[in-house]
Amino acid sequence: MLKLRTSDAGFDKAFARLVKDRRESDENVARDVQTIIDDVRLRGDEALAEYTERFDQHLPAEDDWRIPAEACREAFDGLKPDLRAALELAAQRIRAYHEAQLPEDRDYTDAAGIRLGARWTAVDGAGLYVPGGRAAYPSSLLMNAIPAKVAGVERLVVVTPTPKGLVNPLVLAAAHLAGVDEVWRVGGAQAVAALAYGTKRIKPVDVITGPGNAWVAEAKRQLFGVVGIDMVAGPSEILVIADGKNDPQWIAADLLSQAEHDPSAQAILITDDEGFADQVADMVGVEIALLPTAKVAKASWDAHGTIIVVNSLDEAPALANALAAEHVEIATDSPERLFDKIRHAGSVFLGRMTPEAIGDYVAGPNHVLPTGRRARFSSGLSVLDFMKRTSFIAVSDASISAVGPAAVELAEAEGLAAHARSIALRLGQ
Amino acid sequence: MLKLRTSDAGFDKAFARLVKDRRESDENVARDVQTIIDDVRLRGDEALAEYTERFDQHLPAEDDWRIPAEACREAFDGLKPDLRAALELAAQRIRAYHEAQLPEDRDYTDAAGIRLGARWTAVDGAGLYVPGGRAAYPSSLLMNAIPAKVAGVERLVVVTPTPKGLVNPLVLAAAHLAGVDEVWRVGGAQAVAALAYGTKRIKPVDVITGPGNAWVAEAKRQLFGVVGIDMVAGPSEILVIADGKNDPQWIAADLLSQAEHDPSAQAILITDDEGFADQVADMVGVEIALLPTAKVAKASWDAHGTIIVVNSLDEAPALANALAAEHVEIATDSPERLFDKIRHAGSVFLGRMTPEAIGDYVAGPNHVLPTGRRARFSSGLSVLDFMKRTSFIAVSDASISAVGPAAVELAEAEGLAAHARSIALRLGQ
Repeated sequence: MLKLRTSDAGFDKAFARLVKDRRESDENVARDVQTIIDDVRLRGDEALAEYTERFDQHLPAEDDWRIPAEACREAFDGLKPDLRAALELAAQRIRAYHEAQLPEDRDYTDAAGIRLGARWTAVDGAGLYVPGGRAAYPSSLLMNAIPAKVAGVERLVVVTPTPKGLVNPLVLAAAHLAGVDEVWRVGGAQAVAALAYGTKRIKPVDVITGPGNAWVAEAKRQLFGVVGIDMVAGPSEILVIADGKNDPQWIAADLLSQAEHDPSAQAILITDDEGFADQVADMVGVEIALLPTAKVAKASWDAHGTIIVVNSLDEAPALANALAAEHVEIATDSPERLFDKIRHAGSVFLGRMTPEAIGDYVAGPNHVLPTGRRARFSSGLSVLDFMKRTSFIAVSDASISAVGPAAVELAEAEGLAAHARSIALRLGQ
Repeated sequence: MLKLRTSDAGFDKAFARLVKDRRESDENVARDVQTIIDDVRLRGDEALAEYTERFDQHLPAEDDWRIPAEACREAFDGLKPDLRAALELAAQRIRAYHEAQLPEDRDYTDAAGIRLGARWTAVDGAGLYVPGGRAAYPSSLLMNAIPAKVAGVERLVVVTPTPKGLVNPLVLAAAHLAGVDEVWRVGGAQAVAALAYGTKRIKPVDVITGPGNAWVAEAKRQLFGVVGIDMVAGPSEILVIADGKNDPQWIAADLLSQAEHDPSAQAILITDDEGFADQVADMVGVEIALLPTAKVAKASWDAHGTIIVVNSLDEAPALANALAAEHVEIATDSPERLFDKIRHAGSVFLGRMTPEAIGDYVAGPNHVLPTGRRARFSSGLSVLDFMKRTSFIAVSDASISAVGPAAVELAEAEGLAAHARSIALRLGQ
């Protein structure tokens, strides 16, 4: 854990290092991923089977590649009642928040008599990657699948590896609840390639979202442009801005809630109370000991955990904007005062009663958020990731004279003679 | 030019080939671009100078890398009056259309007493690539710069190569009109790398947009994630859907207005009138002969031009959706009837008086549009490309009991103990 004070000489340098700290895997997977993509594109299901057998140590039978809808329904029906109710509450709240995100079409005629507008439509098909093993979170499935369905996507396809043939019933249950249309037992870069190019078995999709390991992330990056993707995702982050009036145990738990995700995750506390800072640091140690996820959480906190003591919390927004963190908690009495000055953040959690984890599950806004300072230029997942906009223009016989001559002038200046002629002919020139 | 009839045996196969036709450069530039990016990242301005001298055959003097605002103003003042008025009309109409695109923030408290919302903000800095030479279009500068300024971007930076030191006064004039903040004489992958990572001279930006050659496009693709980018762009396309009541000369000019952009551009006509199809084909030959851009237009039309004769225009929307073209003209009396069935298109031009070129200059909607079938999943450039959304959540003492227990249930099911504890502690558990 690193401790900094803004009043210390050398703070600027140390903070700049923190901002530049790249916690993302530099694993050199680009070439391997390209080989896999080319191979799946060329040989389709045959390549998919070979990679699946090699990486998942399991080769599904001919009729077992697709997990039937019935199996998903059964998994859902088999949930213990409290968990089923919790999933249902989460789904309902996520749906409500994302329904209000649906963009409005535009269609108007302006003063020049030209009709202009834009029409939004959903993509035909979306693919959702769901990791196998430890990171197979039903909440992530809901957070990706529900916006797609709210957007109006007709064909929503889940791919998920089933190492040694084992499926995660929680994931199947969430797929049922979210209305997923197809679930395939394939994973890794090979599954992403299959979604992008299609195989005999799996029809291609138009957009691919969902979390994954370095191979999956690299495959999405390489296939960006062949399909749409949501974002390049990195390890999770939390920035907690807290005054000294918080319970140090609560804040310690909040910091650890991101640290427990990944040894590369980062938890940062900014506080104006040095005594409180020390209490939180102590409490992190106490809390870690209680966690089944202690090993991961400790690795993250030791390597990347940071406490910054400021003279006044008024210094916090500038630091937060430079960090552009995925999650920002503001645990003060008047959090809006600071929030109004924070421009770059994935999601902000206001007040002492809003731990970040509430947003991971049941608040409603999406928990798929930009990491690695990408909140400077990108947003959390939304219905817009599954939609596209078609603009339209209608010029009438009467209105072409209002804009046509200027367009001819510009086309000629740019040396585009056919552009100019296509308008000039209609102007009777 | 290829001619197909939907009534012919073998149409499906031929049409599938047309849809799959990749007209994008496969130039193997990826490795060279990566070398340039790494070099600029490491050595900054020194590398930038070396590449500029090599590729642009020109090394600006120490104080001449940046083109002063004054030079842009002078270029604008020096325009002939008609051209200046045309640029001003274009800028005003583009601004009006994009101002209405500004997204609304959300802030509400739901039935559970939880405050939820989303706040949109502009990126701090945007970089705009403007090609040198033939493809340096002032209209493209306006189409990229104005949405950025409407979004609220404070620092808008243009990079543009000046081969042998020559600048394009039209581009400088447009930069002045659009309120560009900095113009630098650098181009190629090295300019994109400088914008993404920053050098001593050029501060980094958060988003990079704008057209360019294969090297520029590849640099943007590789730097996606370090910065935001608009899209992966390919050669231009037009699909004209026209009945037999059109003037074949007008339609020929429309087809050629895209063909003249690039030998890889594609112009396609769908008509239900075989006689009209032949008249258009003849007229394309007549019109090409009149064009200063004849060489490019002919190369495009010969290699990629296509006429599809359908039994009824009712067949057109399905073909249009499969092609997902950048530009779609519908030249019929009731174009809405077909438009209502077209889901995948960058921009649609309705009626006989709306040639695509009107949209390139003065209509208002953006002319930066998805190519290469990417209208299946992506949209034209908009203010949203220069903005990002921060969601927020505020749970009160009273409302945490409404959602907290469900969140604890889900966190425990996912094995994320610190997530569960951060909520359970606040519930007094």
